[in-house]
Amino acid sequence: MPKLRRVERMAALTKMLADRPHELIPLSFFCDYFGIAKSTLSDDLLSVRRAFDAYRLGSLETVFGAAGGVRYIPYRAGHAANQVLQTMAAKLESGDRIIAGGFLYMSDILYDWQWMSAVGEIFMTRFAAVHPDCIMTVETKGILPAMMVARAFNKPLVIARRGSRVTEGSATSINYVSGSTKRIQTMSLTKRALAPNQRVLIIDDFMKAGGTAKGMKELVYESGSQTVGVGVLVATAEPLEKMTGDYMPLLVLEGVDEVKRHVRIRPQLEPEEEINE
Amino acid sequence: MPKLRRVERMAALTKMLADRPHELIPLSFFCDYFGIAKSTLSDDLLSVRRAFDAYRLGSLETVFGAAGGVRYIPYRAGHAANQVLQTMAAKLESGDRIIAGGFLYMSDILYDWQWMSAVGEIFMTRFAAVHPDCIMTVETKGILPAMMVARAFNKPLVIARRGSRVTEGSATSINYVSGSTKRIQTMSLTKRALAPNQRVLIIDDFMKAGGTAKGMKELVYESGSQTVGVGVLVATAEPLEKMTGDYMPLLVLEGVDEVKRHVRIRPQLEPEEEINE
Repeated sequence: MPKLRRVERMAALTKMLADRPHELIPLSFFCDYFGIAKSTLSDDLLSVRRAFDAYRLGSLETVFGAAGGVRYIPYRAGHAANQVLQTMAAKLESGDRIIAGGFLYMSDILYDWQWMSAVGEIFMTRFAAVHPDCIMTVETKGILPAMMVARAFNKPLVIARRGSRVTEGSATSINYVSGSTKRIQTMSLTKRALAPNQRVLIIDDFMKAGGTAKGMKELVYESGSQTVGVGVLVATAEPLEKMTGDYMPLLVLEGVDEVKRHVRIRPQLEPEEEINE
Repeated sequence: MPKLRRVERMAALTKMLADRPHELIPLSFFCDYFGIAKSTLSDDLLSVRRAFDAYRLGSLETVFGAAGGVRYIPYRAGHAANQVLQTMAAKLESGDRIIAGGFLYMSDILYDWQWMSAVGEIFMTRFAAVHPDCIMTVETKGILPAMMVARAFNKPLVIARRGSRVTEGSATSINYVSGSTKRIQTMSLTKRALAPNQRVLIIDDFMKAGGTAKGMKELVYESGSQTVGVGVLVATAEPLEKMTGDYMPLLVLEGVDEVKRHVRIRPQLEPEEEINE
């Protein structure tokens, strides 16, 4: 490998850390890779940490001991989270997003990886304490936010299917009542996807009555695992009580006026402690 | 903003560039953001470029002139691409992945963002010359590779649905014959998702006869846009002639022996020019 100057090594080191969020990388890996001493690497990592702190680009965590190393955690809290949620709420309120039936067109935001990357980091930050083993969602529109949460946690993504598919092999199925349509539907999860005794974090794009999330919780239960949290990008304010129990929305849809074509969305903001902005 | 030492600024600059692939960022943005002169920034960018070149982490491109700036392109070619495809082929060949009907279980790889991130970069590199305006796929399993291609190109993702959904508003629908099942199916695309006169790159996870990709091409045509490429992660070797015409697979499934439970997969490798590995 080429021997680089320190400023150049900093660029490579930063890129490699940022590409592997939540992965504990042994210090010896970087020492070998760059051909540098551990003391030099420690100085480099300190500089990366200072830069990430200063510009709120996430955190570096060092774990000491034989099984130790360094990992990058893409925390997005306080102002950096609020800014995203406020901009997203404004974008969802503007324009002609109302679809007959009181639905809201959100696909342009859900299919945009920059928005979803930020959403993944915000959910990861808010659910950090529950230590999930995997992230679960149901097709289709929940996939992208869920994928980005999985990325921020560096955990596997599990996708339940509507109905049952021949190309995924033996599956666990449940019936559930979609709260908004009141219809009985089927949801299935291939047995290969979820081992027993996993801590599962459920992520979805939208929640009205909570029937779909409740269905996912039942699938988790039937698979011998445990739901440790439910996060949704947008939840309706009404009904206040959802069938799923506890859940964490990032945005609350307070009202859709189909006649005036007006939408009200309230972002769930965090306290902003730092004032030296 | 805090004033950082050069090594620290390098970390922040690298992270910000890598987070926004293919986005042309004006040099004046970084000068203002870091409070540095243009000549200092040029030195910094040269160092980032050297590091990315040395460790094959992608490329920095500078565009001169009033509308100019710098952008990060996550190229993954030669050895860096081949390594991914060979490892992925070996992973797909090993283990018990055969599902009744001759299907292959691939979801663990398709839902893994690190694999899909690499796949997105490889497709972006191979399709760089077609300059797509957007990336299109059909739900469900094509979504993750397509998302990661969209990320690498920094272009919007468009997802066609199977059937037609009430929550997406007015849509264009077509009927298509899935080549493997020989059944007539419906695929739809909301009119909000795809403007006319777009150059569309189609990405899917799997191709057998090519009927699904052909359906997507028809949706593109009906929307007044143009298909500029079709990329699939895995294509079967048989039939050699697909209904879709030209397509680019990354892996070719040469055979599934359901009795011996054996799978053969051939990665589509690139020439590796550099030998000073």
